[in-house]
Amino acid sequence: MNVGLPKGTRDFGPEELFKRRYIFNTIQKYFELYGYSPIETPSMENLSTLLGKYGDEGDQLLFKVLNNGDYLKKVPGDILADKDSTKATKHLAKRGLRYDLTIPFARYAVMHRNDINLPFKRYQIQPVWRADRPQKGRYQEFFQCDADVIGADSLQYEAECVLLFDQVFAELGLRVDIRINNRKLLSALCQKINAFDQLSSITTAIDKLDKVGFEGVQNILEKEGLSHDQINTIEQYLNAEHLQEIADMFQHEEEGQQGISEINQVYTFLDGKTLQNKLTFDPTLARGLSYYTGAILEVRSSEAEMGSIGGGGRYDNLTALFGGEKLGGMGISFGAERIYDIMEELHLLDKAQMEAPVLILTLDEKYHAYGFDILQQLRAKGIRSDLYPSGAKMKKQMKYANRINARYIMILGPEEWENKEIAIKNMITGKQYNVNIDDAVDIILEKTE
Amino acid sequence: MNVGLPKGTRDFGPEELFKRRYIFNTIQKYFELYGYSPIETPSMENLSTLLGKYGDEGDQLLFKVLNNGDYLKKVPGDILADKDSTKATKHLAKRGLRYDLTIPFARYAVMHRNDINLPFKRYQIQPVWRADRPQKGRYQEFFQCDADVIGADSLQYEAECVLLFDQVFAELGLRVDIRINNRKLLSALCQKINAFDQLSSITTAIDKLDKVGFEGVQNILEKEGLSHDQINTIEQYLNAEHLQEIADMFQHEEEGQQGISEINQVYTFLDGKTLQNKLTFDPTLARGLSYYTGAILEVRSSEAEMGSIGGGGRYDNLTALFGGEKLGGMGISFGAERIYDIMEELHLLDKAQMEAPVLILTLDEKYHAYGFDILQQLRAKGIRSDLYPSGAKMKKQMKYANRINARYIMILGPEEWENKEIAIKNMITGKQYNVNIDDAVDIILEKTE
Repeated sequence: MNVGLPKGTRDFGPEELFKRRYIFNTIQKYFELYGYSPIETPSMENLSTLLGKYGDEGDQLLFKVLNNGDYLKKVPGDILADKDSTKATKHLAKRGLRYDLTIPFARYAVMHRNDINLPFKRYQIQPVWRADRPQKGRYQEFFQCDADVIGADSLQYEAECVLLFDQVFAELGLRVDIRINNRKLLSALCQKINAFDQLSSITTAIDKLDKVGFEGVQNILEKEGLSHDQINTIEQYLNAEHLQEIADMFQHEEEGQQGISEINQVYTFLDGKTLQNKLTFDPTLARGLSYYTGAILEVRSSEAEMGSIGGGGRYDNLTALFGGEKLGGMGISFGAERIYDIMEELHLLDKAQMEAPVLILTLDEKYHAYGFDILQQLRAKGIRSDLYPSGAKMKKQMKYANRINARYIMILGPEEWENKEIAIKNMITGKQYNVNIDDAVDIILEKTE
Repeated sequence: MNVGLPKGTRDFGPEELFKRRYIFNTIQKYFELYGYSPIETPSMENLSTLLGKYGDEGDQLLFKVLNNGDYLKKVPGDILADKDSTKATKHLAKRGLRYDLTIPFARYAVMHRNDINLPFKRYQIQPVWRADRPQKGRYQEFFQCDADVIGADSLQYEAECVLLFDQVFAELGLRVDIRINNRKLLSALCQKINAFDQLSSITTAIDKLDKVGFEGVQNILEKEGLSHDQINTIEQYLNAEHLQEIADMFQHEEEGQQGISEINQVYTFLDGKTLQNKLTFDPTLARGLSYYTGAILEVRSSEAEMGSIGGGGRYDNLTALFGGEKLGGMGISFGAERIYDIMEELHLLDKAQMEAPVLILTLDEKYHAYGFDILQQLRAKGIRSDLYPSGAKMKKQMKYANRINARYIMILGPEEWENKEIAIKNMITGKQYNVNIDDAVDIILEKTE
């Protein structure tokens, strides 16, 4: 029989799950400390909510859910005769699986506008689905961890997000580089070279710098039809090492001056705060997403080769997509799946384990019910514990105890039963001794506290 | 613009989510205490894994995920010409959304057979999806909370599941009735009336007793072609008040005697354990699911009219569905959505709230950055806190503080700034006083500990 999982999806066993929880819980703890409140949105959204929000590629990568019932009935016959999948979709599927957490949040904010208070700070830790070609570290179902504040322009939130990244990664034990830039500088750059209508493609090209190097970016820009002069100015911008160089460059671009001022304000808010990781202004930082309009942030590990493990930025307007009032905001996202991979590599998750159980072994059905009594006494004291079903040979029971990582075992054999005793074995030290059966629970309690 | 959610799906805001978490966390705590370990399976399974496992109705109610790319290409032309939705599905959709947690667990156990140790105790708290007609209390996306042990026959697990139900509901503050029966008794009943081939439909009919009364069941059984004598015997069984009556009835049915013996063994394990809720043997308990073969359990609220809020039972064989070795087991499920509704009705969730924040208000941009300093000091002490962006009128900021349920506010106004003080207001008592600005964080820390 064929048993398997859809490509790009995963089962998580207890060990992996505890490690994942440790990461999610740490992120969640700081989100809450910083005043963000959780929301959850449904896995399925109306396709009308999702389509057209992630570009053509995104529309392709959305998982669409087949309508129920006699779904073919409503599809026009000519579309079926032509086997025109593109045209058929809207007749076959009303719903799609969540592709990210940002668009559902914007939809949420518009729908619940009367219940939320601005500034509204929400975080969301939920899976998303993308029909991407699966490859190492890329899945069709994966978790995102987002925090956003909307309805507030203050740059205190940019500073807060830098501190959030800094503290979460410090607590996780990862050393990272946090980079900051401002989309207004990229905007000013395009104005300066009279190519403002190409802002989006120039941003996309610069975003590829890490992957293709400057020559690669140059090639893309040439293909976009930019002149040598224009490309030279872009190169000058990308090579700037200090904010002052950029400031000098954009003396006549108001948006550039504003971008500089915003970055400086963020630094002012951070004044006197001790960062545990490095924060660098990086004019080459562009971020792929189109909706950013102000500050942009990106985090990379200083210890492992692994793209971005966190990012975010300020946007002017997300909610207007859904006809709501214009609500700008600032949001960040932790790349939990990649963080997991790095932490595993660095053995930082080895201790994220479930409480090791105490296991009771009985050697005869005759006193198995007594073993069950002790079990319930242990549980009443809050000790994670279990009782191996009676009947198996001692060797088999011991093997099981080892496999489930029991920390103590309690053995009730014929001799112990005879003497009203129970044997206690510390599975780490291997030390074993008999105690009076009535004292057994208290002794375990003392040892496990 | 049309903004909405697919029917039968819900958004959860912070308040609801904290209440839901309280329920999930309580259930999870006891699952872990009782030695169950968590797993998570993907939202999407191969349709071949899901189809045929939940009956014809279940197959209809499965959400199927449309294949990506040019999905119509592979559908035979005649199926499309006929608009034959039933035949088209297998060509259009390879994947479906998880319908319950049991079948994915069976698939998991077979796929990971070499990594798991028997008895294997797993719990799983995840959403499932059903294309059911939405109605009050019934959703298309909802959470299930399951615990199962497989690879062990011992009736200690039946007793353990009774205790789990008892303790979880006690901790949640709900009074419940736990009922127990054994499918072997229903099996013996059908043998006794020479209708063993109708076991499944008789079980289904008895399962409807609560809804349609005995006359309703009688009607169904008549339609199934049962004679008056047969129906009389069923009535005698359903009216039995004590286990002994059933034992007398099934003197010649070996399976009946075994069912009686199993129930008695469960009671023996429970001997001397103080249950906080009532446990009743109930021969009329049938449970809908077809795979149960031994003990069955059901839990109902004693305080609210609301079907079953927990249930479970023993099955001989789930994994064989996927070609694995035969692994029987015992599993239970908490009806978390209904538990939520009852607890809300009884106001038992009012205290399940997020930590109320401390909010800093500043009245001028001039000392707003200083407010941000205090904010980060509070956060460094682990106090959930926030800073209202500067510039708004005091009245507006106070309104916000009330709306987000701030427990303390700290106000930095011109006079305070002048005197190097800050005003602290307890939002519950209304008491307000000024303190030295350097002592403010320590004072808040002391008050909130």
